[in-house]
Amino acid sequence: MSSLNISEKVVINSLNDEKELLVQRFKKIRDFTEMLTEPLETEDFVIQAVEETSPVKWHLAHTSWFFEAFVLKKGMEDYESLHPQYDYIFNSYYVQTSDPHCRDQRGNLSRPTVKQVFEFRKFINRKMYAFIESLSESEFETWKPVIEIGLHHEQQHQELLLTDLKFLFAQNPLYPIYKERSRPFGREQQKLNWIQFEEGVYQAGHEGGEFGYDNEFPNHKTYIHPFNIADRLVTNGEYLAFMNDGGYSNTKWWLDEGFSTVEREEWASPLYWVIRDDEWHHYTLNGIEKLDLHEPVTHVSYYEADAYARWAGARLATEQEWEVASKSLELEGPFVESGNYHPSSADPDTDGLKQMFGDVWQWTQCSYSPYPGYKPFPGALGEYNGKFMVNQYVLRGGSCATSKTHIRRTYRNFFHAHSRWQFSGIRLAQDAVQA
Amino acid sequence: MSSLNISEKVVINSLNDEKELLVQRFKKIRDFTEMLTEPLETEDFVIQAVEETSPVKWHLAHTSWFFEAFVLKKGMEDYESLHPQYDYIFNSYYVQTSDPHCRDQRGNLSRPTVKQVFEFRKFINRKMYAFIESLSESEFETWKPVIEIGLHHEQQHQELLLTDLKFLFAQNPLYPIYKERSRPFGREQQKLNWIQFEEGVYQAGHEGGEFGYDNEFPNHKTYIHPFNIADRLVTNGEYLAFMNDGGYSNTKWWLDEGFSTVEREEWASPLYWVIRDDEWHHYTLNGIEKLDLHEPVTHVSYYEADAYARWAGARLATEQEWEVASKSLELEGPFVESGNYHPSSADPDTDGLKQMFGDVWQWTQCSYSPYPGYKPFPGALGEYNGKFMVNQYVLRGGSCATSKTHIRRTYRNFFHAHSRWQFSGIRLAQDAVQA
Amino acid sequence: MSSLNISEKVVINSLNDEKELLVQRFKKIRDFTEMLTEPLETEDFVIQAVEETSPVKWHLAHTSWFFEAFVLKKGMEDYESLHPQYDYIFNSYYVQTSDPHCRDQRGNLSRPTVKQVFEFRKFINRKMYAFIESLSESEFETWKPVIEIGLHHEQQHQELLLTDLKFLFAQNPLYPIYKERSRPFGREQQKLNWIQFEEGVYQAGHEGGEFGYDNEFPNHKTYIHPFNIADRLVTNGEYLAFMNDGGYSNTKWWLDEGFSTVEREEWASPLYWVIRDDEWHHYTLNGIEKLDLHEPVTHVSYYEADAYARWAGARLATEQEWEVASKSLELEGPFVESGNYHPSSADPDTDGLKQMFGDVWQWTQCSYSPYPGYKPFPGALGEYNGKFMVNQYVLRGGSCATSKTHIRRTYRNFFHAHSRWQFSGIRLAQDAVQA
Amino acid sequence: MSSLNISEKVVINSLNDEKELLVQRFKKIRDFTEMLTEPLETEDFVIQAVEETSPVKWHLAHTSWFFEAFVLKKGMEDYESLHPQYDYIFNSYYVQTSDPHCRDQRGNLSRPTVKQVFEFRKFINRKMYAFIESLSESEFETWKPVIEIGLHHEQQHQELLLTDLKFLFAQNPLYPIYKERSRPFGREQQKLNWIQFEEGVYQAGHEGGEFGYDNEFPNHKTYIHPFNIADRLVTNGEYLAFMNDGGYSNTKWWLDEGFSTVEREEWASPLYWVIRDDEWHHYTLNGIEKLDLHEPVTHVSYYEADAYARWAGARLATEQEWEVASKSLELEGPFVESGNYHPSSADPDTDGLKQMFGDVWQWTQCSYSPYPGYKPFPGALGEYNGKFMVNQYVLRGGSCATSKTHIRRTYRNFFHAHSRWQFSGIRLAQDAVQA
Repeated sequence: MSSLNISEKVVINSLNDEKELLVQRFKKIRDFTEMLTEPLETEDFVIQAVEETSPVKWHLAHTSWFFEAFVLKKGMEDYESLHPQYDYIFNSYYVQTSDPHCRDQRGNLSRPTVKQVFEFRKFINRKMYAFIESLSESEFETWKPVIEIGLHHEQQHQELLLTDLKFLFAQNPLYPIYKERSRPFGREQQKLNWIQFEEGVYQAGHEGGEFGYDNEFPNHKTYIHPFNIADRLVTNGEYLAFMNDGGYSNTKWWLDEGFSTVEREEWASPLYWVIRDDEWHHYTLNGIEKLDLHEPVTHVSYYEADAYARWAGARLATEQEWEVASKSLELEGPFVESGNYHPSSADPDTDGLKQMFGDVWQWTQCSYSPYPGYKPFPGALGEYNGKFMVNQYVLRGGSCATSKTHIRRTYRNFFHAHSRWQFSGIRLAQDAVQA
Repeated sequence: MSSLNISEKVVINSLNDEKELLVQRFKKIRDFTEMLTEPLETEDFVIQAVEETSPVKWHLAHTSWFFEAFVLKKGMEDYESLHPQYDYIFNSYYVQTSDPHCRDQRGNLSRPTVKQVFEFRKFINRKMYAFIESLSESEFETWKPVIEIGLHHEQQHQELLLTDLKFLFAQNPLYPIYKERSRPFGREQQKLNWIQFEEGVYQAGHEGGEFGYDNEFPNHKTYIHPFNIADRLVTNGEYLAFMNDGGYSNTKWWLDEGFSTVEREEWASPLYWVIRDDEWHHYTLNGIEKLDLHEPVTHVSYYEADAYARWAGARLATEQEWEVASKSLELEGPFVESGNYHPSSADPDTDGLKQMFGDVWQWTQCSYSPYPGYKPFPGALGEYNGKFMVNQYVLRGGSCATSKTHIRRTYRNFFHAHSRWQFSGIRLAQDAVQA
Repeated sequence: MSSLNISEKVVINSLNDEKELLVQRFKKIRDFTEMLTEPLETEDFVIQAVEETSPVKWHLAHTSWFFEAFVLKKGMEDYESLHPQYDYIFNSYYVQTSDPHCRDQRGNLSRPTVKQVFEFRKFINRKMYAFIESLSESEFETWKPVIEIGLHHEQQHQELLLTDLKFLFAQNPLYPIYKERSRPFGREQQKLNWIQFEEGVYQAGHEGGEFGYDNEFPNHKTYIHPFNIADRLVTNGEYLAFMNDGGYSNTKWWLDEGFSTVEREEWASPLYWVIRDDEWHHYTLNGIEKLDLHEPVTHVSYYEADAYARWAGARLATEQEWEVASKSLELEGPFVESGNYHPSSADPDTDGLKQMFGDVWQWTQCSYSPYPGYKPFPGALGEYNGKFMVNQYVLRGGSCATSKTHIRRTYRNFFHAHSRWQFSGIRLAQDAVQA
Repeated sequence: MSSLNISEKVVINSLNDEKELLVQRFKKIRDFTEMLTEPLETEDFVIQAVEETSPVKWHLAHTSWFFEAFVLKKGMEDYESLHPQYDYIFNSYYVQTSDPHCRDQRGNLSRPTVKQVFEFRKFINRKMYAFIESLSESEFETWKPVIEIGLHHEQQHQELLLTDLKFLFAQNPLYPIYKERSRPFGREQQKLNWIQFEEGVYQAGHEGGEFGYDNEFPNHKTYIHPFNIADRLVTNGEYLAFMNDGGYSNTKWWLDEGFSTVEREEWASPLYWVIRDDEWHHYTLNGIEKLDLHEPVTHVSYYEADAYARWAGARLATEQEWEVASKSLELEGPFVESGNYHPSSADPDTDGLKQMFGDVWQWTQCSYSPYPGYKPFPGALGEYNGKFMVNQYVLRGGSCATSKTHIRRTYRNFFHAHSRWQFSGIRLAQDAVQA
């Protein structure tokens, strides 16, 4: 268990209470996944629009497969799978468990049907309840952290389910509406302010005591130089000023590979932006909306975030800076539980560092790499994080599609520099002079 | 009407009888399309496995769009479409009618739902009945041939619906069964016999008097040299002998582009063939079956048909030879109406030229090109055939997925030399010496 | 020998005279190849600009390899190659002789040097002289036709050497001049006239009696419908009118694959055309020239030739029509021996069918396919033509880069429908009404 | 000048002495470039084998263009270029100076000839001598650092010239020899030993006082955790053990993108390794050699270096660790001046940290990113480094193709994780426990 970096709390409750708590948490998260699919038609579950995205149906099944592969098959005596080929078609990339179906083929599976996939979920749930029920105290200590990982894994896929669905709907000229949102429109934002942090040796990474992925450990010392961080996110209006200044055609602001991408992909705005009747609109899970200039810009790549920052005379924060800056903040924000599925403008009447959690993932300038002393989870779960530590960039803070019970201050999300289909946005930073 | 190459029969019946006949025929063909989808789950209607194929749902809608675009919008006063964007998303390539949605995007439309598409079909049907009802005698003469094209168009898509669906199901490791088939298994075929035809000037092409596509006209003279044609199709067993003789790795038998394709695509058998338990099986709409060596080989490309023919010391027939050979035959065979959805072995107790119609499309050696004096259909329907007359090869005879009321002796089907997902097979021919 | 379709002239001369004649012809053609490289710098011999083209050096070596592989290695006792790997790197695609080096790698060979390649040519020449000298009368009859093929092969590569070089130079912003040309500039062309031919059974193909490739045989009957053929080639000025009428953006004129190519390749004019100082110029082997509106348009693809013809209310000729039309003409025209390396405007003072030979290859509407009764050359030489008979289109008449001693009325050149780097142009035809 | 991060030494010498020193250095480096081309034939200068590499000729011209674009055009009155288009075709990517010719087109320029390129070099040299001669003291202080960058730029291209040439020669089945090497063969290496370094705050980056690129600045504090570093490079023999253990087919050792690359590129050994007569050989600039198991493995990608390290139970060093470890070492090693053009086995009789400089570039685990407080060179030279700071990985130490007067302890080289054509190798590190 300690190898999984899961803290060992003193167990005061009886084993049964512990089990009950885990089952409740399991049920709540699994139900939430299904709740997210309620607005959908059967047809919406099936399609894989591009290789990077997966069908809704696949997310539902794969998260169930995870419990089968990492818990039931390993821990439950005489466990038999509902269908012998689900292990193949719902494995993502864990080569140490089984041979995974090609990622780009996930959208070619009209069967199993949506109904069958929900039955697979029910089947797994029942087995998991029985399994948890059956555990002795020492077994519970062994399996609880693995189940915990499975639940966090499911929460990650809740977010992907929404962003993949948004990508799919955006390809459709009918622009389907997933769910209407209520929102404060047109809240004028305050002028951006800088908040300064001092130079010195800081602690970074997860401190233990509650769940964390292996990539957040160990807690370690890091030297940070004096820096300023912006008190709020960059808005659509500010980003539009960059666009109107010729931002997308001036190589001066861009990383070399960023500009090649701009040219090859013919980017001229964030993803999902379209002009209608001579005005900028964007596709949201609420359908096509007129752009609110005061909301945070989202669906930008690392390249765009970096180019905007240069144009603005600033830079992106390092992930260490972001973590230091967020240290004293409450973990609060407009997460997926708000049911808005889109970032909101900041409340102009509050002060201090705002919009650090929820709304949009914030690109940092840091390549995704192991912390000093990093150790992967043991066994096949060691494939969870470490093997992706190349050519990806870290994002922090969670988004409007992230669950509040999933995010942490030390949470490291990561995507390729060209990725835009997540709710990803921009917070500026700059070098400071030591006072 | 004559410009559409539709024959003008003497109208004996009253106009109402004529209308009634057309409505009956319309209903029968439209219903047959829907009947073909009965074994399917909602999820099966949605997916586009590769660009060349289309979702079942799209076929259902596109065939309805055809009547809207070429009949209702042009001929019906105050016609209003059920949805303003269907014209865009269900157009295939008729640029003279509207801007077509990208072909490779057809699989990204989860909406309209299957239910909505069936409603669209019903809407079009109702409008078409009302439209036909409303026609004067001269209007009827104007619109009947266009409706006739629309019905043949629908029948073409019935075949594509089945072959596209087969391609999709074959990608699925669960190998879904579309419909069980009954069949005579293991009927040993007679030794292949050659039937000779004399040299001379022949007539080729459609003689008028009933419906034909523009590409079958005009009926024209052609000089044919003495030739032999095989009395039956090449079987799986014969093709397997070619494979076992190293057919796929010996460049000697192949067109240069054929062998490049073999290497690039790593072909080593016809499409859908798989080895299970050390024996050849193939995926059929009846699921995975053990290969019947006596059934006609199918799902081979032009390249494979040509290579096999060279290996067998023969060649493919020209389309003129095929047409001459078929002249005296009844238009009978195992078509889609048989409900078998797979080619059958020939009845070994019959003589003469067998399996010319139904079973499998027969690759000819001819590039698809205009007949001397060819004139396209007028207007936007002129885009139906002529614009594809390059880099495609002609197939003759129809298949187990073709409707008996759709095929003709002069019917010219055409696909690229690398295409394999149609029910395409091989009939041999050779040069003969004039007696 | 007859199997090579080479006519057997009555041999009047003594064997020695025959040998002397063959040696003279061998020497003349081999020298002509080298003469074509005189204006070049060493650097110009090395580069392969795209896979379809080959380095000049490779042409020089490959044509020599041909004599080694098909004559010396097979017929000369104790023959030893100059270098053991030349057989590998200078083979083009004859898999029955040896394993060929990848086509797209020809430009990665800085060695052997140009000097070494010329030494290889000299080595082969000396061996060939000795070989011919050594032949008995019956051996001479065996080997002469193979050598004859080798010489025609070399002449084909003379033309490719020039067109590949032109393609390479055109990529260079310095636009090197290969050789200055003298030419009549601005000769106003007569109005295009139509010449009619009657319906009937004609003979087509090579009649024997002198050299021909296997693809020109056998001479055979063909039925031709009444047609008109244009008395001269389409000019730059006429083609420009098509362009100015929006020809490249109106799908109406284009084959479907043609228009896809136009869009994908962003074609808006023939190859090598550029606008300078608001006027159309084009790159020629004489450098950048202002476009002469009266010269024949060249460097157009089949797609463009076909689209232009439709726009002009005409069509391309079939290869049979072209052959019938050319029947009574002298085989004269501005060939490579003229040293002009560019097509010329027709002499406006002559009448009748003009510009049928030399100037530009004329696209026919015919797919490249075997004549009825076609038999490939025996052995590895059978790979010369037959294996390319798919997805290519026939051109007739030769060009300003073709040798006068290479071309024939029955000569069938062939390229893909998208190819533009040959001197390919347009002659119109149309259906006629029988008088 | 200080903005270029060039230290300001106290100038003791007279201005003339300073100029003389600079001219001598200029001459020496420029001559060395040309010396490297002495073994080449004209044909070897022309070819670009893949987009990542450039023709030798282009390196010769581009390094000259650099002085023209950044010095002569900006600082010399009435400067006129030798040819108006050289500015276009020899610019690499400096968009602020002029529009650069497409990188993948560098191999399509047979002209200017090699001779003309050498003339261009002479022309630039003469102009530079005159320019330096003409400078006042303050002008000298302005231009000297720019010229210094130009000379380091030239030295970088000396290395690329060799590695690009090696890549080209390796494509040629004739495997040309660039230059014979003398070497100690088969020197058995000592068992690998670990050298430990303590935890703490260290200084990293260039300390000033002599030339450095902008990416080495500023000198800054960094926190380093206790680590061990291997005392010598990984050998061919050790790497072969990884291969023989199935290293290339076991996903366990690989980054996810690394293994995809292995599969897509069909890697099964380092670049240039081939089996001949059942034994491993490799192509070197000395031609094909039998593999010396004691020499350092080279031409491995970041992916391979990382996978090998995991297999060996270690990891790559961070660039900060590497820099700390190298602190007390003399900057000595087998550099390009040794004329060996291949890494050597370590002298088994010496102790301590070996092979840190020369031999092979050592992959670090660090993504190439800006140091805290990084400032690019001013003006167009700011495009030199900063715009590449994404998706590349840092290598340290220089190689057998690097000049001794070019490398520094703080020098940061960078390539993509899949790149293998540089002399790149592996030094292991591991986490240590603080004593």
